Amino acid sequence: MDKNILGNNVITQIGILVHDIEKTSQAYADFFGIDKPDWSMTDTADIAQTEYRKQPTQARVKLAFFDMGSLQLELIEPDHNPSTWREYLNEHGEGPHHIAFVINGMKGKVAMMERNQMPLLQKGEYTGGRYAYMDTFNDLKIILELLEND
Amino acid sequence: MDKNILGNNVITQIGILVHDIEKTSQAYADFFGIDKPDWSMTDTADIAQTEYRKQPTQARVKLAFFDMGSLQLELIEPDHNPSTWREYLNEHGEGPHHIAFVINGMKGKVAMMERNQMPLLQKGEYTGGRYAYMDTFNDLKIILELLEND
Repeated sequence: MDKNILGNNVITQIGILVHDIEKTSQAYADFFGIDKPDWSMTDTADIAQTEYRKQPTQARVKLAFFDMGSLQLELIEPDHNPSTWREYLNEHGEGPHHIAFVINGMKGKVAMMERNQMPLLQKGEYTGGRYAYMDTFNDLKIILELLEND
Repeated sequence: MDKNILGNNVITQIGILVHDIEKTSQAYADFFGIDKPDWSMTDTADIAQTEYRKQPTQARVKLAFFDMGSLQLELIEPDHNPSTWREYLNEHGEGPHHIAFVINGMKGKVAMMERNQMPLLQKGEYTGGRYAYMDTFNDLKIILELLEND
């Protein structure tokens, strides 16, 4: 395996799949004594340009973010279009989906990981940046998300 | 639900279940360009006083820790005695098991959570402290570990 592929090892986010973002957001807010954040919907496919397993998809999710120390906990409620979110939720039920790292040079990082048998699972754009979910299960036993902010 | 039960919302650890701690530790070390830590074995039952679902158990695990920003990533290879580690690994396969928070007053926190329909799943002692895994799946969609250090 190539070494130090990301260039950092700072976990910036943990993502958790849920069926009902309103209900689970309220539970987190109550349990931790913090305000319930509003959820937001990811962009439509024309803007997000989401690709899942190399195919364009209309998939969107509702997202809610909680600051939990130095990292964010992200709740994710997927729709029923094909995506890593929907597939993983169907297969594993509610629970942790990924840990995320901020990187520079998305194309290069994705290419290097694919050369190391860590395939691109899904990618998309958001306002101010882009993400890629990498299938690192074989080596790291979890999905890794790369985040690049412009 | 009682509010702000833990008294903080700082994730201090994420725990990942693995079948082969040597192999996965090496993969993490290579991928992130850091030294492979030695694993350690948890204490025997006479010291750890492990209880799983209210019953004493001989269960032990191999643990390896990685500093990943402000939190630790913990790899866990369980033995085959009854434990939340073994049960979860058998049911879900390798992957994330819990997120952990440092708390004060273990008995009080566990009692308050149990009053809020978040049952104690497993507890035990380690040198300098103790832990409790709480079944918070219904509300928070993940197992929570409480850590109390003396």
